[in-house]
Order: sequence, then structure tokens, then C-alpha cells
Amino acid sequence: MDCIFCKIISGEIPCSKIYEDDLFIAFLDIRPIRKGHTLIVPKRHFESLFDTPVEESAAIYAVTAKVAAAVREATKSTGINIIQNNGADAGQEVFHSHIHIIPRSHDDGLKFERQHDEYSGFEEMGKLAHRIHSLTE
Amino acid sequence: MDCIFCKIISGEIPCSKIYEDDLFIAFLDIRPIRKGHTLIVPKRHFESLFDTPVEESAAIYAVTAKVAAAVREATKSTGINIIQNNGADAGQEVFHSHIHIIPRSHDDGLKFERQHDEYSGFEEMGKLAHRIHSLTE
Ligand SMILES: [Zn+2]
Ligand SMILES: [Zn+2]
Repeated sequence: MDCIFCKIISGEIPCSKIYEDDLFIAFLDIRPIRKGHTLIVPKRHFESLFDTPVEESAAIYAVTAKVAAAVREATKSTGINIIQNNGADAGQEVFHSHIHIIPRSHDDGLKFERQHDEYSGFEEMGKLAHRIHSLTE
Repeated sequence: MDCIFCKIISGEIPCSKIYEDDLFIAFLDIRPIRKGHTLIVPKRHFESLFDTPVEESAAIYAVTAKVAAAVREATKSTGINIIQNNGADAGQEVFHSHIHIIPRSHDDGLKFERQHDEYSGFEEMGKLAHRIHSLTE
């Protein structure tokens, strides 16, 4: 399979490695949004959160918390975004599931913008909440 | 403590609830970036990922995976961003730790932009990786 993250994990492609255990590897993103931008990647190939076993999703966030604290300290940043993009339409570029750790500082200019009101009112919001709730059961 | 999420959890302020268990509650964000924008919130008050016990960070991501799948299906979205903003400089607005689930669709115009090259070269990148790695130990 022609997956750049699988090649990094196997050692075929080098990386600036930060962390490794049996399940995960963390390294610096080679095209960072901000200096210190780090990726946490499961060693097994999953496409996104949606085909990852639930225990592995739990385990990756424990590692993410630990690595994020180290990134924060090393970069002396005052904020950290943790981001997982699932699907091309969500900005996922490598289709081997991964979590971004992005160090932030005051007025660095990055943000998701809220465009406009998304709901007509509370009734529409309540209906959608009910629909989503029914799908979690 | 004057925390809006603690008031939602206690029932003092209403919400469009999606999910609840012993540890977490999920509800629709009242100021959504996109329709179906959902928040997962630990019932105990932590400020961010950095003061949350590691077991609770692991547990929240298992719940997040489950709720995100329901949000994706209910909104018929083709992508999902999972985001945790830690610190005001990372865009955190409510200082009770939470994870955003944001449904996405093709060409909806939201993205984090990469501004410019952040490293002078691989040497700088390698040094930073080494420094972060030493902090995870
Ligand atoms: Zn892969
Ligand atoms: Zn609170």
C-alpha cells in the first residue's frame, strides 16, 4: 500500500521522531501550520476515527495528552489545538488516521471562523439533537 | 463557580442534549460553526486537557468516536473535525475542557491555513523534535 505514514512507521521514510510506543508514533509535521506542529499516528493503518477500534481511540488520546504537554513546554506556547480531520472534506490529506498537535500563541491569526447562524431556532436545534441522540443508542 | 458548562451539567441552564453517561455529556453548540456542531464535556470541571486525568482523556475520546459517528450520520456530512482548543490563545472560549465535533461538507470554506515555511531546514526541525522527545520522558 502506498501510504506515507506506513512508510514512516516502517522506517522506509525518515521523520523527526518525538515519541514511540507499541501502538503509536509521534513526529513533527514536515509542512507545519506552526513550528512544533506534531502528528500522533497509530502504527496500524486505519483510515480515520471511524474505522479505528474504540480501545485504540482511547489509547491515542492518553498519548496525545502527554505529547501535547511536551510540545507546549518545548515551544513555550500559550495554547494548543488538538485536531483530528476525518475525510477529505474535513481537510484530511493523508488517509492514515492521525491527530494534530498545534502550538499556538497570542494573535497568531489562525482560527475557524463562524460564518453565520446555522439554525432557524431552538426547534430545529432540538430536532437535530434528538436525531443524533437516537443514533448513539 | 460561574461556569456555563457546569450549569448545563447541573441542569440550571438547558441544552440540546445528545448523549450522557456517568462521566460525560454531549450537546449541540448554541453558536455552531456548522449545523450539528457538538460539544463533548466532562462532568467534572477541568480547565483543559492539561489538568485532566489521563484515564478521563482516554475515556472522552472513546465517547467522542461514538458521538461523532452519530453526528456524521444525522447530518449526512462527508467529513468530521474533532477539535480540542486548550487555552485562550488556541481559541478556547469556555474554560471547562471540551471537545468539538464539527460536521463538514465539500467546499464549505472552513480551514486552518498554512501561512509560510516554519523551519529554516531539517536541522532546526531535528533539534526541536529532540527537545520535545526529552520532555515526554
Ligand atoms: Zn498507512
Ligand atoms: Zn465547569
